[in-house]
Amino acid sequence: MREPIAHGGRLDEARRRYPGAPQPWIDLSTGVNPHPYPLPPIAPEAWTRLPDDEAFAALEAAARGAYRAPQAAAILAGAGAQAFIQLLPRVFPARRVGVLGFTYAEHAACWSAAGARVATAQSVAELATYDVAVVVNPNNPDGRVLSSRELAPLAEEMTRKGGLLVVDESFMDFTPTHSVAALASLDGAIVLRSFGKAYGLAGLRLGFALCAPARAERLRAALGPWAASGPALAIGARALSDARWLHAAAAASATDAARLDSLLEQAGFGLIGGTALFRLVRHARAQDWFARLCGSGVLARAFPERPEWLRFGLPAGEAAWMRLTAALEIA
Amino acid sequence: MREPIAHGGRLDEARRRYPGAPQPWIDLSTGVNPHPYPLPPIAPEAWTRLPDDEAFAALEAAARGAYRAPQAAAILAGAGAQAFIQLLPRVFPARRVGVLGFTYAEHAACWSAAGARVATAQSVAELATYDVAVVVNPNNPDGRVLSSRELAPLAEEMTRKGGLLVVDESFMDFTPTHSVAALASLDGAIVLRSFGKAYGLAGLRLGFALCAPARAERLRAALGPWAASGPALAIGARALSDARWLHAAAAASATDAARLDSLLEQAGFGLIGGTALFRLVRHARAQDWFARLCGSGVLARAFPERPEWLRFGLPAGEAAWMRLTAALEIA
Repeated sequence: MREPIAHGGRLDEARRRYPGAPQPWIDLSTGVNPHPYPLPPIAPEAWTRLPDDEAFAALEAAARGAYRAPQAAAILAGAGAQAFIQLLPRVFPARRVGVLGFTYAEHAACWSAAGARVATAQSVAELATYDVAVVVNPNNPDGRVLSSRELAPLAEEMTRKGGLLVVDESFMDFTPTHSVAALASLDGAIVLRSFGKAYGLAGLRLGFALCAPARAERLRAALGPWAASGPALAIGARALSDARWLHAAAAASATDAARLDSLLEQAGFGLIGGTALFRLVRHARAQDWFARLCGSGVLARAFPERPEWLRFGLPAGEAAWMRLTAALEIA
Repeated sequence: MREPIAHGGRLDEARRRYPGAPQPWIDLSTGVNPHPYPLPPIAPEAWTRLPDDEAFAALEAAARGAYRAPQAAAILAGAGAQAFIQLLPRVFPARRVGVLGFTYAEHAACWSAAGARVATAQSVAELATYDVAVVVNPNNPDGRVLSSRELAPLAEEMTRKGGLLVVDESFMDFTPTHSVAALASLDGAIVLRSFGKAYGLAGLRLGFALCAPARAERLRAALGPWAASGPALAIGARALSDARWLHAAAAASATDAARLDSLLEQAGFGLIGGTALFRLVRHARAQDWFARLCGSGVLARAFPERPEWLRFGLPAGEAAWMRLTAALEIA
C-alpha cells in the first residue's frame, strides 16, 4: 500500500492547520489556470444519458486537432491525465522504470505500486537503459523542456527494444510547438495530455493518451466504456476546438507569470523556472515563507524533498494579487 | 483483446442503421430513470478546482446514509459502478471466477480480460466453489432478487477461504430493504452501487464500492486521487441526502413499470421480470419486433444470446408512451 502523495490544491488541510488565516484563502498551490474556459450551455442529455461513441469520437477529433496528433496515432479520452498515469503500469507492466527527476510524484508512485523497480534518472541518455522511461515535459515543477530532437531518439530506441517512453505533456497547451505528439505514432511512445489545467477546469476530470493503435486498444479495454463524463465530453469538444481562446489564454498567462516573477524576485526569491501556469522559486528560508504565507491565507506549494523550493500558481484577479503582494511584505 | 460489449443506449448506431425512422428516437434500451434528479446549482469551484478530500468525504457520508452501509465497512466513490467492475480483477486477481448468469456481461468480460477463468454459475451453492463469485442483485435483465439470507452464507464462506463475493446492486435504489450492504463489513464481500441509473444521471459517471477497510485502501490506491468529477461529487452528495425524492421516484417508476407491463402484454409479449426501471419480456418473434420497433424509432434492448428476449426501459413522457403504443400496434 502506498502512502497518498501530498498534492497541491489541499485547501481543506490548510484551512484546518491555519484556522485564523484571513478569508478567503488565495490558493496558489496548483498549476490550474485561474481563468477557466467559459462553461458553454450543457445539453440535458450530457447529464442524463450514457456518453455514446459519437460523443467520444467528436471529443477525440477535437483533441486530435488541438494536439496536432499524427494520423498514424490513436487518441483516447479518459478521466484526467491521472487516470492514465494510474492505468499505464497495469496495462503495460514493466520491471525497470526510469523517471526523469525531480518531477510530479505520481508516475513513480504508480509504477512502484504495480511492482516495478523505479529509479530517478538524471539524463535522457540514462533513460534509454530502462524498460519504461517517463518524462514530464514541460517538467513540473521546474518547467524544463526537452525538444523533439532530444526525445525522438529515445522513442525510437524504446520502439526498437519493445520498451515505452511516456511523455506527460500535462502543461504543454500554451507551448504547442514544443509538443512531441508526432512521436505518438511510434510503438514505443505514448503522450499524455491534461485538459483541466490550461482550460482551468480541473474538476471536470478529462485527459488524453496519444499512442499507436494497438496500445490504444489495450488502454481502451482497460478504461472500459464511458470513461469520461457527458459534461466533460461536451465541454472538452467545444473548448479544444476554440483556438482563439487558447491563444488569448496563453498570452494572458504569460503576462501574469511575468508579473508573478517580478513580485517573487522583489521578495527575495530566486527564480528556478516553471511554465506560464506556475513559477518555481528558491529561498534559503522557503519553509518559513510557506508558513508565513499560510498565516496570511496564501497557499503556495512546498516540496518536502526540496525544502528550499516553493511553487506559485497564478493569482485569479486583482484582489488576489493584492493579497499576495501584502503577504510577500513587499509594499 | 476483448471485443467491446454491445450495451443499451447505442442510439448512435440505431440512427445509422435506421436512417428513415421517425424522429426523435424513443430510447428504451437502457435502465436509466427517464425522470432525472433535478440538477442543483453547481458552484464554480466544482468545475474549476481539483475535488478535495472534504468533497469526497461529504459525498461518501451521504452515500453511507443512503445505502445504509455498516459502520465497519468503508465506502468509496468512483466514476460509475463500471469503473469498479473494470478495476476489481486487476486489484484482486483471481484464477476461477463464477458469475451467476444470465446477467450483465461486463463482469465476466473484465475478469476474463484480466486472465481469470470465468464460468457461468446456475446457483448460489455453485458460486461457493469459485475464488470469486459475482451476483448482480437485482439481476439485470430479469430482476431476480436474492435475499441477504441467501447471500450471507456465501459471503461468510468467501471470507473464511479468502475469496470474494461481488454483489452488484446497480439497480437496488428503489428496493433498499433488499440490499445486502450489511455484508460489506465482511472481508470476503464487496457491494457495488450505481448512482446514475435510479437518479437518471448516467452521464455524470458516479458509483460506489462498499467493502472492508483493507480492501477499500487497495481500491483507493488503484483509483488514484480525484476519481470522480467535481460536479459528480456535488450533485451526488445532494441527491443521496434527498430521501423524499428517492421515495417519490420509486413510486413513479413502479407506476410506469406496471403501465409498461400492460402495454407489452397487450402486444403479445410474455413478462419474464425486471425492476422498476426496465422490464424483460419474451416473444417467439422478438427479433422481428426489435427491427419493427427500430423502424418506428423505438429502440429496445435485444440480447444476441437470448433471441426471444427484449428489455424495455421506461418511456420519458406522454409523447413517448404514445409512440411506443403506436409502435406496438396495439391501438
